[in-house]
Amino acid sequence: MTKRKIKPAFKLWFQIGEDYVFGEGAYKLLEQIRNKKSISAAAKTAHMSYRYAWARIKEIEEHLGESIVKTQKGGKQGGKTEITEAGLLLLTNYKRLKELMTEMCKIT
Amino acid sequence: MTKRKIKPAFKLWFQIGEDYVFGEGAYKLLEQIRNKKSISAAAKTAHMSYRYAWARIKEIEEHLGESIVKTQKGGKQGGKTEITEAGLLLLTNYKRLKELMTEMCKIT
Repeated sequence: MTKRKIKPAFKLWFQIGEDYVFGEGAYKLLEQIRNKKSISAAAKTAHMSYRYAWARIKEIEEHLGESIVKTQKGGKQGGKTEITEAGLLLLTNYKRLKELMTEMCKIT
Repeated sequence: MTKRKIKPAFKLWFQIGEDYVFGEGAYKLLEQIRNKKSISAAAKTAHMSYRYAWARIKEIEEHLGESIVKTQKGGKQGGKTEITEAGLLLLTNYKRLKELMTEMCKIT
């Protein structure tokens, strides 16, 4: 009998108490907002509707008790959205942990 | 605004291709079989029916193409079940990886 190729997999998320707050979908969205400075462009790339993306952001902010994005209205090119320091912290912590876990799965 | 306590959480499993093979439930079951040398006693501790435990074991063995437990029938105290080398490998790899990931979550 040949031993079949078995490999580890995982799902990572952040929670407050027992409440799910932030996972892979929100991570991808937030990363795209950082890159594209626009929620609608980010939502498109993350394959979400603008409405859903916006609702997810508001939900996360409510959980955290602080903003993760800030939008400047107007200007020459219209509104521009940036992620806040809290948003960046969430993003980088998730990314780092995911990368570490992925590495560990490779060496197992 | 106070920053609320946000913490990482994860779910770990082993898969072959895209098929789920082994996760937390099976890990607990297998660990108990190692301790108790009995599937029925292990199932009880892991809060599973004997029938379900047995089906899970068979399912995992089918995925792997090898046995993870072996039962010796008869003897003074009736049948005794031990985990095989393949079962032990699965158990220890899962446990080690879970512990490493748990540690990483703590330091994030």
